Amino acid sequence: MFRTSELEKKINLEIENILSNDQPANLYDPIKYILSLGGKRVRPVMTLLGKNLFSETVDDAIDAALGIELFHNFSLLHDDLMDRSEKRRGQCTVHRKWNDNTAILSGDAMLIEAYKYIAEVPADLLPQILHLFSTVAGEVCKGQQYDMDFEQSMSVTETDYLEMIRLKTAVLMAGALKIGAIIARAPAFDSELLHTFGINIGMAFQLKDDLLDVYGDTKTFGKNIGGDILCNKKTYLLIKALKNSNEVQKKELEKWLSSTDYDPEEKIAAVKTIYDELKLKAICETFIEKYYLAALDCLSSIHVANERKKELISLAENLMYREK
Amino acid sequence: MFRTSELEKKINLEIENILSNDQPANLYDPIKYILSLGGKRVRPVMTLLGKNLFSETVDDAIDAALGIELFHNFSLLHDDLMDRSEKRRGQCTVHRKWNDNTAILSGDAMLIEAYKYIAEVPADLLPQILHLFSTVAGEVCKGQQYDMDFEQSMSVTETDYLEMIRLKTAVLMAGALKIGAIIARAPAFDSELLHTFGINIGMAFQLKDDLLDVYGDTKTFGKNIGGDILCNKKTYLLIKALKNSNEVQKKELEKWLSSTDYDPEEKIAAVKTIYDELKLKAICETFIEKYYLAALDCLSSIHVANERKKELISLAENLMYREK
Repeated sequence: MFRTSELEKKINLEIENILSNDQPANLYDPIKYILSLGGKRVRPVMTLLGKNLFSETVDDAIDAALGIELFHNFSLLHDDLMDRSEKRRGQCTVHRKWNDNTAILSGDAMLIEAYKYIAEVPADLLPQILHLFSTVAGEVCKGQQYDMDFEQSMSVTETDYLEMIRLKTAVLMAGALKIGAIIARAPAFDSELLHTFGINIGMAFQLKDDLLDVYGDTKTFGKNIGGDILCNKKTYLLIKALKNSNEVQKKELEKWLSSTDYDPEEKIAAVKTIYDELKLKAICETFIEKYYLAALDCLSSIHVANERKKELISLAENLMYREK
Repeated sequence: MFRTSELEKKINLEIENILSNDQPANLYDPIKYILSLGGKRVRPVMTLLGKNLFSETVDDAIDAALGIELFHNFSLLHDDLMDRSEKRRGQCTVHRKWNDNTAILSGDAMLIEAYKYIAEVPADLLPQILHLFSTVAGEVCKGQQYDMDFEQSMSVTETDYLEMIRLKTAVLMAGALKIGAIIARAPAFDSELLHTFGINIGMAFQLKDDLLDVYGDTKTFGKNIGGDILCNKKTYLLIKALKNSNEVQKKELEKWLSSTDYDPEEKIAAVKTIYDELKLKAICETFIEKYYLAALDCLSSIHVANERKKELISLAENLMYREK
């Protein structure tokens, strides 16, 4: 059994060699740059943990894990461009460091590169894994589209929101885990349970992200606190606030949502005050807990010794109780 | 044996059903829109002709052919955005009809969709075809990057240019044909010859495109004549002109290349006059002919009856002697 930290090291070692001498530089440097910004490599580690859950070795799942990480970073690269984000992990985003066209084309090349790594899985498993990977990739695009559509809409329901984060965040984590299980040739029943574990962890992860955007610590979180509030992002907190608010609170919220000329700090403080009055932090934490427990429930039903599940349980715990 | 026109019809029938009810609309409508703009479906027809060269049926190559057409249109969609083109086949480009973000994300979804269709080839051929497809896709990105890099450079050589159009245009045509041959389970030697036929046709096709941009008829060509001259695109004509010009002509050319404030019609006329003085139209046509003959030479060496090669020969001829 490997520790998560060992697997993260394995991934980082491989990432250093990706595209090391590829030309033209203007196409591949931005890819190497965004990969070098680090991060916890959660998704490729999940692929290796999915493999390791059912099998002693993980090396034969590394290419697929790298494909997952390349895809994830491709989506960050294009999302940052679409959202006009300035910073990613405290550093310049690709379109700011280079320009928009570089971000578009390097992102495209990165998606293709992801497929090249996925294609390295054992030939007999390729049809199944490729189908899963493309389905997930398409769903992530759908999720991003819904996310953008929702910014223009005032009628987003909790159901809409949950479906959006399922597509945008949860299916990739679930897919990453399941690809590992498929490479381990796990029984279909067990790899499906691992998939559902991943969906639940992904939902909890995104809800936690929304929460940290309001209640996180600027220093540890890396992004600016209140970013979602400023761009009227239809997060779980905002949707719940619009639903649970009394008339006065609702009017106040709607005023801030429609105003174009305001002091950012003032808007963040005002909206947060309403969230506090409605006890949304606790409500959101209970909701996260619900997904977390559902995830653990799936994991406990998988037919392998509990001993093998330890690392996945710690990973889930770390994602739930993280402060960044 | 199928006629090219029949194959084009087959492709168009299938394209009408692609993504017909997929949601969200903002993601899939732009994909359906760009596919509906038509065109000659040259590349997917090449896949079917590649199949039909070695086998009586073509239906089992249609999904791969659609994958090729989806990929081609994805690259047009993102290229139009990067080049800030206003028109595509006489209609609004996607980023003009919608917006930049829609063009980015719909393009991404379209590339993923292309992979979904490629994944439908017989399972035992999938590793080989997927590898070829991803290689081609990566090369098309490289070609586009070189094309953009060259716009900023004054030292592009003929060799640089030929490598750029090989990547940007020729490898996709060659790949489209070869995928058809692989699905037909043609001998490796023959499918390699068909690939080289495609490279040569692709080179000739792009040189013809450069020529039409200067010497074509606005009405039939669809794009504005002289567009390449206005954006200082390093085409075969411009590279040859810079190389073959005398001192006076070279000074004049460099003046136009560096001037930022000019009358577009005047610039086009002035540059074209130099091309005419240097007889570049005839030089370019001879060069195209060279690739065309090399292509026919490859085709003649393929081990199938000449009867079966007729449609590919006419297609090649039509691409060489087209006026649009």
